[in-house]
Amino acid sequence: MKFLLLVAHGSRREVSNDEIRILAKRLQAMNHPFAEIGCAFLEIAQPSIQEALHRLIADGAKEIVVLPYFLSAGRHVATDIPEQVKQVKNQYPNVQIGIATYLGASEMIAELVMKQALDKLSAI
Amino acid sequence: MKFLLLVAHGSRREVSNDEIRILAKRLQAMNHPFAEIGCAFLEIAQPSIQEALHRLIADGAKEIVVLPYFLSAGRHVATDIPEQVKQVKNQYPNVQIGIATYLGASEMIAELVMKQALDKLSAI
Repeated sequence: MKFLLLVAHGSRREVSNDEIRILAKRLQAMNHPFAEIGCAFLEIAQPSIQEALHRLIADGAKEIVVLPYFLSAGRHVATDIPEQVKQVKNQYPNVQIGIATYLGASEMIAELVMKQALDKLSAI
Repeated sequence: MKFLLLVAHGSRREVSNDEIRILAKRLQAMNHPFAEIGCAFLEIAQPSIQEALHRLIADGAKEIVVLPYFLSAGRHVATDIPEQVKQVKNQYPNVQIGIATYLGASEMIAELVMKQALDKLSAI
C-alpha cells in the first residue's frame, strides 16, 4: 500500500493549517495510486510528521511519499524534514519512505505564477 | 506599461532569495504582456516591496500586478503585503496596482502536488 503525506510548516492561524487539510482532501478526491493522502506539520500544528508516519505504517503503509509543501529550499526542507523522516525510517527498515522534491522546485511553478498574474491583470 | 512584481517572504539564506530572482528571470523569458517582471521581498532581503514599486513607477509603470509568492494566506498575505502596497498607491493615484491571489490559492496547486508525488513514487 502506497501513501502520500503532504508536509507543511504549520501555523498559529488554524485557518492556515486547514488550507493544507482541505488540499489533502482535494488530492484524495483526484485519480491517483495512493491508498490515502494525508497531511502533517513540521511545527506548531498537529499531527507532527512522526505521528502521521507512525499512523500510516500502523494502517499498513509499505511505500510512503513525503512531499514538502514549501516554496523554497530553506533549512526546513534541507534538514528538518529529512531528519524527522529518518528517525521513523530507522524504526521500520521494511517500509520505503521517499521524500519528493519540494513544491517550489516544480517545473510547473513558473506557469502557475504566470496564470495567476494574467488573471489579475485582466481585472485591474 | 504593465509590470509584474513577484513578492516573496525573504530569507536569511541568500540562496533561497536567489531562487526567487531566478524564477523572476524564468518568467521574464516566457511569453507575456509585461514590460518587465521583477521580484521583491517582504522582509530581510532586498529590494523591499516599496523600493521595487518606486523603481517600477520611475521606469514608467502604469499598471502593476503584485503577486504574493506564498502558499498560505497568513498575516503576510492578508495584511502585511496589502499595507505596504497601499502606502505606495496613495503616493501615485494614477498608477494601477493590483494584488493577485497568492500562489497557494491557485486551482493548479493540487495538480502540481500530485505530479511531484507521482514523480517520486516512480523513483522509490
